[in-house]
Amino acid sequence: MLGSLPSFARLEAELGKLPGVGSKTATRLAFHLLRTSETEVAALAEALLEMKRKARFCDQCFHIAEEKLCAICVSEHRDRRLLCVVEQPQDLLAIERSHSFKGLYHVLHGVLSPLDGVDPEDLKIPQLQQRLSTENFDEVIVATNFSVEGEATALYLARLCRQQGVAVSRLAHGIPSGSGLEYIDAGTVQHAVSGRRII
Amino acid sequence: MLGSLPSFARLEAELGKLPGVGSKTATRLAFHLLRTSETEVAALAEALLEMKRKARFCDQCFHIAEEKLCAICVSEHRDRRLLCVVEQPQDLLAIERSHSFKGLYHVLHGVLSPLDGVDPEDLKIPQLQQRLSTENFDEVIVATNFSVEGEATALYLARLCRQQGVAVSRLAHGIPSGSGLEYIDAGTVQHAVSGRRII
Repeated sequence: MLGSLPSFARLEAELGKLPGVGSKTATRLAFHLLRTSETEVAALAEALLEMKRKARFCDQCFHIAEEKLCAICVSEHRDRRLLCVVEQPQDLLAIERSHSFKGLYHVLHGVLSPLDGVDPEDLKIPQLQQRLSTENFDEVIVATNFSVEGEATALYLARLCRQQGVAVSRLAHGIPSGSGLEYIDAGTVQHAVSGRRII
Repeated sequence: MLGSLPSFARLEAELGKLPGVGSKTATRLAFHLLRTSETEVAALAEALLEMKRKARFCDQCFHIAEEKLCAICVSEHRDRRLLCVVEQPQDLLAIERSHSFKGLYHVLHGVLSPLDGVDPEDLKIPQLQQRLSTENFDEVIVATNFSVEGEATALYLARLCRQQGVAVSRLAHGIPSGSGLEYIDAGTVQHAVSGRRII
């Protein structure tokens, strides 16, 4: 019956392509938009098109940017001797929110996963290698996730950095703030014990 | 820092206005769209605008439509002596999916709720009254939800129909298919017992 309403069905179909949006959510969103003012729907449509027109990746660190270089790479307030390597722009944003790091970044856009056919050349690793040899870093902080692939990628990058004579570190792996030990998985507790610090 | 990326931040803000989309989901969706091809993003934007341009409500039953009258109201295969009153277009679609009703509909676009200032005039009730006096219905099925407001609205509509001399019925209220009694709320069980049928 919605076949008689192609415009509504089409919007449902397009919304259903978004991650985490099933057909029921798509219908709910479409009905919400049907009731929303034309101005507001136009604002959403324009925001979509504008983002696609303007947003790109930084030529140096591959974070999201609107110019050739992102705001962090051009900033004069960053320590250019520290480099933090992350998997995704979202990870970079999480570190920025913590206000704990003032160096530069390098976004890999993925992790090594030989079984899925993801090799160093599929990530921004050649570009990282290039930066390691041309820029002058004192330390590279590898902030890939503590998953199997993230750990493997960290090992690979550590070897790469050592070959270039740059010190490498890894984020501390342990109990998060506000957590009770009883709710933490055994692997994390194991890392927290073996990585304990004298206070 | 995303202040330096107005196009991305703007899209995040617009997506965050959708129901059920918090700021984290908005960021996730925006990153997904950043990676999506320009053609696909343009298709979504165009679907939004087209729906807003074309979709409207039926002049007779207030279901969604692209013409003055919806596909159900103009259909020659519907029983014009049966009318089913629902709260929202979504409810109408649920009944259509059940293939159990072949009459016409009337969408109220809400329920009576005096405490929230929702009076009959704020819903499509005057229009329903008009239809009851001009069209020739044998029975009106009130399919508002079994909430406090839905039940109150049903009582109000029942009185209205009786004044016009039209028979009124209400959907059966009981245990849904596939449910175990132990998981059903006491109110529903109570209705199922009092509404039991001899078999």
